[in-house]
Amino acid sequence: MSKHGIIQPRKLKGFRDYLPDLMEKRLEIMDLIRREAALAGFRTIGTPALEFAETLMGQGSDETDKQVYRFQDNGGRDVALRFDLTVPFARFVAEHQGTLTFPFKKLQMGDVWRGENTQRGRYREFAQCDLDIIGVDTMMADVEVLSVFVRILSSAGCGASTMALGNRRILSALIAARAPGLAKGQETEVLIALDKLEKIGREKVVDLIKKIPGADKGADLLLDDLTKKTASGSSDLTHVRTVLSELPEALVDIERTEQVISLVKKVAEGKPVTIRLDLSVARGLGYYTGIVFETTLDQLPSLGSVCSGGRYNDLASRFTTRELPGMGGSVGLDRLLAGMEELNLIKGGTGKLAFVAVATADAWEYGFSVLSRLRAEGIAADIGLTTKLANQFRHADRIGASHVVTVGTSEMASSTVALKNMQTGEETKALAVSELSARLQ
Amino acid sequence: MSKHGIIQPRKLKGFRDYLPDLMEKRLEIMDLIRREAALAGFRTIGTPALEFAETLMGQGSDETDKQVYRFQDNGGRDVALRFDLTVPFARFVAEHQGTLTFPFKKLQMGDVWRGENTQRGRYREFAQCDLDIIGVDTMMADVEVLSVFVRILSSAGCGASTMALGNRRILSALIAARAPGLAKGQETEVLIALDKLEKIGREKVVDLIKKIPGADKGADLLLDDLTKKTASGSSDLTHVRTVLSELPEALVDIERTEQVISLVKKVAEGKPVTIRLDLSVARGLGYYTGIVFETTLDQLPSLGSVCSGGRYNDLASRFTTRELPGMGGSVGLDRLLAGMEELNLIKGGTGKLAFVAVATADAWEYGFSVLSRLRAEGIAADIGLTTKLANQFRHADRIGASHVVTVGTSEMASSTVALKNMQTGEETKALAVSELSARLQ
Repeated sequence: MSKHGIIQPRKLKGFRDYLPDLMEKRLEIMDLIRREAALAGFRTIGTPALEFAETLMGQGSDETDKQVYRFQDNGGRDVALRFDLTVPFARFVAEHQGTLTFPFKKLQMGDVWRGENTQRGRYREFAQCDLDIIGVDTMMADVEVLSVFVRILSSAGCGASTMALGNRRILSALIAARAPGLAKGQETEVLIALDKLEKIGREKVVDLIKKIPGADKGADLLLDDLTKKTASGSSDLTHVRTVLSELPEALVDIERTEQVISLVKKVAEGKPVTIRLDLSVARGLGYYTGIVFETTLDQLPSLGSVCSGGRYNDLASRFTTRELPGMGGSVGLDRLLAGMEELNLIKGGTGKLAFVAVATADAWEYGFSVLSRLRAEGIAADIGLTTKLANQFRHADRIGASHVVTVGTSEMASSTVALKNMQTGEETKALAVSELSARLQ
Repeated sequence: MSKHGIIQPRKLKGFRDYLPDLMEKRLEIMDLIRREAALAGFRTIGTPALEFAETLMGQGSDETDKQVYRFQDNGGRDVALRFDLTVPFARFVAEHQGTLTFPFKKLQMGDVWRGENTQRGRYREFAQCDLDIIGVDTMMADVEVLSVFVRILSSAGCGASTMALGNRRILSALIAARAPGLAKGQETEVLIALDKLEKIGREKVVDLIKKIPGADKGADLLLDDLTKKTASGSSDLTHVRTVLSELPEALVDIERTEQVISLVKKVAEGKPVTIRLDLSVARGLGYYTGIVFETTLDQLPSLGSVCSGGRYNDLASRFTTRELPGMGGSVGLDRLLAGMEELNLIKGGTGKLAFVAVATADAWEYGFSVLSRLRAEGIAADIGLTTKLANQFRHADRIGASHVVTVGTSEMASSTVALKNMQTGEETKALAVSELSARLQ
């Protein structure tokens, strides 16, 4: 840092500024999520950005732990910035279980921080918007969470998308069937390899799995099971049922998954969201125990998932003995926005805006009273902030004002204004102030 | 941290969770601020929570520097969490000056972090909501910023409030007149002492000022100037004009301040916000150069200011040679909420909510279709997430549903529902689905 000179204005890598058009779109999508969540009876909560490190660490993968922003605060406490909203939510539910009503449907939106490698659509600071239903393990809760995400995605203005649903328990059963010699803790290795299917392709995934002791022989068959498709592009459940025919529990899981998909498809009818069964959806994280899902934009599948989640059987086991099964997911708001930017779907601008220009120094009070009147009637209105009328008009034009309302000595005397439509150029002199709102609405 | 057992769910001191009623009120006030800002042509921006430490440090007081959460990130960079939104905004404006239109009116809302001592209404993580107009130094910009804050405060539901306006330049002129022997860098010491007037009283402030070399003799007279009031409770400008009669520049400042106050009073007419001239308003921070203001809740003045700010003559001098005068302020959202909690002004609840209860296992698809229909028509609606009807009804009651819509085999067959008003107990059997929305709206 230069002590006397000027320093370069710069940001940390992986962090970004939001200029108005993008920021307002971001807030608009957050509004939409809140609206849909509230329509479905979800309640909004908030938790701190900073927590004791012991609350957060060791909950994702080792990789996640390495990415956490962790430090000692000025009081010598070992603290960390949250890397997701799920772990703080677990702490929250354990702490407030006495005052919450279960099943508890919650919305939580906020920034999270991960020091990961930056790439397209990936930032070190990004917002998550999480919906969860805690306290029940039922087909209905699965459907309800997925339905609300379908409604959100279909009105976000991000074009068509596809939600791929798998089931972690069916996947585990298939892994056990195809790699019966796999050591107990090794299933995660297989899941991590499968998670890369979209990125690196089948051949490389098979190579990775073959290196896992006990999984070598069945790797090809497992990939067959997971990628075999019906005519409609869904995983082939008839085939999977045959593979798992000896396992009654797996057959129950298959039935529930079919029921969830059928009900969510009904919700998605007529909406630009395609629902597809895809048993290869693995989701890296260890804690899923049922339905898992990912959503990609049809025009930008390589961007990765913009909305994902799944069912877990115990949210807060580290903090309470109470068993809290849940189903939830997250809209990756900033990745979604990055995709929409890339697809040119972010339209900006102030919308309709009137601009009060003040021609003479004696008319400022009158100008501000006209301004107050417009705003009180819900009309967005700006006012000149410099004395010269020509400069005020130029500024009105540059910020895209739709109308300029000019006032000066004579308008003040007669309680009128001069109105100019900036699109058509049409001008009206001596318009009564009482008629102005009607003309602008 | 216990490795095998259960750990205590706990938060860092000075950090808080937001349960639904409070969180939804917080978002509601943020919505209100956004709505008023947009009505006045302010545009919303966003900046990162984390910045290079060199961007943030040394900008507030030494005290502020000590409170900053500063650490080395995993890449060895010296980084810090923002302690306000103004310093990051200065960096933002310098970086994006080529794409912004000046005068630039901006809204910025977000959390900031300060490791300060916790007390009532003071947290280590709290939200600021900043409005600023950058690029002009005019009376009109002063009025415009203050007007929007008046509109926000008057609709926030926080009861009556009082906005006290001072002027840093008039204050400086008075200090120079009463303590002509004060060394150049010592004015800040006087300002810091004055900032404590409300808390520690006149006598102790005079004692503090008397200890500052060169300010000892005039301390009493200065306090007289600042606390002398007219019948209406405003600072006595007739008296101040006499004291400063030799200083033409100060007289110009007085005139502008009077004009600003008179115009803002017009905006506040009929609203529960009292505007008062109070020249003792000092605002600790060094950078103010004109109007300064603070706002207290009339029912809780001891809570401190919930909305403050002022005029500064150069926002981003550390980052650019371009001079950027500005006027701005901040709503202290979390202190405001703490005050509203204390005054019992936070009303909670889900509002009107219909609840679809499903009586028979075959009717879930029908139940979800009724649910979709209600939501599509904008009616907030929840659905049973467990199988037993009695449990569903009990849950509907506990979450405060206004109506329960029951469906089962017979309703499904006839495209009807059974409707129960949970307040009156009134029940309607076999209501056609097509008539349900009308009954609930």
